[in-house]
Amino acid sequence: MNYKLLIQYDGTDFHGWQVQDNQRTVQGELQRVCSLLEDADVGVSGSGRTDAGVHAEGQVASVRITRPFTPEKLRGALNGNLWRDVRILQVEKAPDEFHARFSASGKTYVYRVVNAPVISPFWSRYAHHEPRPLDVARMGEAARLFLGKHDWTAFSSVNTDAQTRVRTITEFTVESNWDSRANAAIIEFRITGDGFLRYMVRSIAGTLLEVGRGEKDFDTIQTAIVGGERSLAGITAPANGLTLLKVYYN
Amino acid sequence: MNYKLLIQYDGTDFHGWQVQDNQRTVQGELQRVCSLLEDADVGVSGSGRTDAGVHAEGQVASVRITRPFTPEKLRGALNGNLWRDVRILQVEKAPDEFHARFSASGKTYVYRVVNAPVISPFWSRYAHHEPRPLDVARMGEAARLFLGKHDWTAFSSVNTDAQTRVRTITEFTVESNWDSRANAAIIEFRITGDGFLRYMVRSIAGTLLEVGRGEKDFDTIQTAIVGGERSLAGITAPANGLTLLKVYYN
Repeated sequence: MNYKLLIQYDGTDFHGWQVQDNQRTVQGELQRVCSLLEDADVGVSGSGRTDAGVHAEGQVASVRITRPFTPEKLRGALNGNLWRDVRILQVEKAPDEFHARFSASGKTYVYRVVNAPVISPFWSRYAHHEPRPLDVARMGEAARLFLGKHDWTAFSSVNTDAQTRVRTITEFTVESNWDSRANAAIIEFRITGDGFLRYMVRSIAGTLLEVGRGEKDFDTIQTAIVGGERSLAGITAPANGLTLLKVYYN
Repeated sequence: MNYKLLIQYDGTDFHGWQVQDNQRTVQGELQRVCSLLEDADVGVSGSGRTDAGVHAEGQVASVRITRPFTPEKLRGALNGNLWRDVRILQVEKAPDEFHARFSASGKTYVYRVVNAPVISPFWSRYAHHEPRPLDVARMGEAARLFLGKHDWTAFSSVNTDAQTRVRTITEFTVESNWDSRANAAIIEFRITGDGFLRYMVRSIAGTLLEVGRGEKDFDTIQTAIVGGERSLAGITAPANGLTLLKVYYN
């Protein structure tokens, strides 16, 4: 039976999603636990990798389990063997052809920034701290420059196994909301597209932060998008601010 | 100069507020850092103790520092020497007679409960997990029984150095709100009073949870409040759900 898993993780203590020797990874933990239940090696496929320190509120994975479980029992058995920083929120039976990565049609990420002199201990794991003032309206305008279908060479890692760097960004919003636990405003960059290259969201977030501090103009961003020159993009923003929010399937 | 500090901490990795030998405590950390700046032993007075695992979004402390600092510089110097799970949000100069405990006129605590089959990793440090269904409306009705001036013997620790167990609860609300990060409803018990005895909020929260599960009736609660019999109160709810929200000063 093929299952679709909805997964959350606090990425702080993981070396990212992808299984690696001698490192604690989310995929590694899930494969360990599924293999325990199955009493055989089991592969777990995620919708995509997330880097070390990146969080997920809605990662999706697919896995084949032959032992008979109801979805609810499977969820309980998985969670019972995982540390509390990763949780399976939902388990559903999926059609045989469902694959978390190949069936995905898009994703939404959120990048969170606490824009205040001090960052609350309740947010320091989950948001980037920027004590310098940020111009939220201007970042919102700049976000619109990123909409559309482009080659994202300037905003991605040099190393990639992707066959093309062309991706389409369909939504990109910037919002600032007061958060009582932070005792400060939290700025959220929400970006949706059909897919993202490695470091792409963090590179775009870093560029937007430079706009917010008045250090980057719109022309430079346009030129970077069109010409693909990495030196024109902003510095990659830290991993802890980034969260995979949702994966879409048709 | 006397200073008033507004402090947040994630209580997970602290053995509570009060300084103890060979244990990491919030007061201990603050005294260590203040003593570093002052190059002499410095005492830090909190508005009250919090137990191991209990959080604070708005703890208040007072401290005397003789070296010349602006409030902003003092805040920076303190935060620069603290781990990120405790932060000084604000520093203000305070009148000489200000004392965080003796000047306090009241406090608000919040007790958070994730009422869903699975608790999100983003909330497992900060909220109690109750997978069984809870009747929120009934808990809200029960909360009203606790309003007023009473002897709280039934709802507090046997051991206390308090001279009287009489306290007045002025507000007590129960609210359930959908939280997108939890992917579930979070129930909040918010309780305000002129002061609270040790374990009092957690004992009341535990009693309310029993009401929510249909295990405790209103008459038993009334009898416990009036008669002071501990066996009639609920089981003390776990520390991680509890957060000191605010301390009031006239």
